[in-house]
Amino acid sequence: MNISPTHEDAIVVDGLQINNWSRAVLEELVAGGVSAANATITVWEGIEESLRAVGEWNQFARRNSDLMVLAGSSDEIRKAKAAGKIAILLGAQNTSLYGDDYRLVEVYAQLGVKIVQLTYNNQNTVGGSCYEPHDSGLTRFGTNIITEMNSSGVLVDLSHVGNRTSIEAAEASAVPVAVTHSNPTWFVDNPRNKPDEVITAVTSRGGVIGCCLYPNVIGGAEATLEGFCEMVRRLADQVGPDRVGLGSDCTRHWDDSFVEWLRSGRWRPPSTQTATWPTWPQWFNGPEDFPRITDGLFAVGFTETEVRGILGENWLRVFDEVFPGQEGA
Amino acid sequence: MNISPTHEDAIVVDGLQINNWSRAVLEELVAGGVSAANATITVWEGIEESLRAVGEWNQFARRNSDLMVLAGSSDEIRKAKAAGKIAILLGAQNTSLYGDDYRLVEVYAQLGVKIVQLTYNNQNTVGGSCYEPHDSGLTRFGTNIITEMNSSGVLVDLSHVGNRTSIEAAEASAVPVAVTHSNPTWFVDNPRNKPDEVITAVTSRGGVIGCCLYPNVIGGAEATLEGFCEMVRRLADQVGPDRVGLGSDCTRHWDDSFVEWLRSGRWRPPSTQTATWPTWPQWFNGPEDFPRITDGLFAVGFTETEVRGILGENWLRVFDEVFPGQEGA
Repeated sequence: MNISPTHEDAIVVDGLQINNWSRAVLEELVAGGVSAANATITVWEGIEESLRAVGEWNQFARRNSDLMVLAGSSDEIRKAKAAGKIAILLGAQNTSLYGDDYRLVEVYAQLGVKIVQLTYNNQNTVGGSCYEPHDSGLTRFGTNIITEMNSSGVLVDLSHVGNRTSIEAAEASAVPVAVTHSNPTWFVDNPRNKPDEVITAVTSRGGVIGCCLYPNVIGGAEATLEGFCEMVRRLADQVGPDRVGLGSDCTRHWDDSFVEWLRSGRWRPPSTQTATWPTWPQWFNGPEDFPRITDGLFAVGFTETEVRGILGENWLRVFDEVFPGQEGA
Repeated sequence: MNISPTHEDAIVVDGLQINNWSRAVLEELVAGGVSAANATITVWEGIEESLRAVGEWNQFARRNSDLMVLAGSSDEIRKAKAAGKIAILLGAQNTSLYGDDYRLVEVYAQLGVKIVQLTYNNQNTVGGSCYEPHDSGLTRFGTNIITEMNSSGVLVDLSHVGNRTSIEAAEASAVPVAVTHSNPTWFVDNPRNKPDEVITAVTSRGGVIGCCLYPNVIGGAEATLEGFCEMVRRLADQVGPDRVGLGSDCTRHWDDSFVEWLRSGRWRPPSTQTATWPTWPQWFNGPEDFPRITDGLFAVGFTETEVRGILGENWLRVFDEVFPGQEGA
């Protein structure tokens, strides 16, 4: 694939990837010109397992220090790009890593866990999930967690969070919040996508919606690149081109047991039929295909500045507003 | 108490304190001219409880930021002294905070846990304790833990560790190790004190012995200041005055339930008779009495340079040799 000069030169930030990380995956990011990614370290796991996952990431980063660095700021992302390395931001797709302890928000922030989704697919002590029949809204503990995330410089991610909880979280946060990997429900009506009320709650406060390439939220493998980019175009018209980013939700190199884990965790028995991964569209199989998105964004009429914003600069602006708030030790 | 100009001006480092930390304790450190202390965060606790303890220390430091800072280097200790604040180094008296996971050495180092004793009073997965009838020596996991402590810049503390394990640990470490709070057995014959073989293994490799004021290791409340300082003098003659420091083992503001916890943890039922704290000698009740030690050291003939070394500069030299080794993220 020819990579356009814009893509090659741009800071490309992927709002979320949940790969089975290996050197091969890092090489895919290199091939796709991805500068930085929010890498999910845990989904259902609690305090101890999440701490071990940080330890594993430290080791992985050291083993692959020629290809990547762990990063916690826009500045570090830009420096990594200049040095020809991928910047990985550690993230969690659940507040389960904090257990019942608001103090662990700062502790995990000290360890570089900078982007945390309030809930995964189930209600938790913080709020309601997008898959729950009834969304509790943000709890009292949830309000404390957001206060701690604000003061410790951790970005609140609402992607799998229920709509009511999402709006209340956006209102509770002193700094922008984000949807790292979802689309508008007017594009595909799916619990994981967001109605206009949530999109407005996030973007009107400076946050970004990371348009997502996971098959289930784009309408399956038959979705077209043009259709995806037209959705991005319409969303940019709706909320402003500086409020839109990308969050691929790449799931590279997992076998089917992992999708079963994502769905059933330890909250229910595994499915009687083995869960399987959905088929990705031919034009986006993984990080290597990011240049196609850049081409697609130009094709639907975005300017170069707008394309650079959507590819990464909009995420960096949010990081700049959220991460420096750190009051930590 | 009049504080001598030397004491007031010196960097005074306490090799170990295990207080029930509060603002009142910090004020005692201020009154005693203590510049820095290795504060025990956990003793028997595992991964999760130790992580919570770090969170609690972050909060405590923030609430008392006019009196203290969390520090992880000699430079930060000197800066804290210049700013009129106490520098606290976080430490653990057991490797239980690492669980079964050598990767957590680096993770806890990232959180500022810079001084870790290999075992508390019981054998663990790393090695043997001074109270065990048979000392296993350093285990294979223990060797890995020391390698990780070396590369992550964590000082190995041997105070409660068995003699064989201690000698093997000193040999396994690429940088100096320490006994933060014990005395020679030739002073008081107690499992917690150290025979010459251990003292030599530590000091011949650049490490420091922190002479300890805990009643049980100085011969009880009847011990005299002069006798303690004469012990320090003889030890300095034996290993060199730059290999000797102080580690008070202060236990301020705990009730008797805590001494029971220290002794019985969760490894045996509590004593049938309630455990009680020993009585401290009249001349050393806590951090406020550190100036008396300075006077006592002068009284047994140490020069001002030697006194400054014993009070803190010797610890700082060890910190300089151990802490910068960090290869972490």
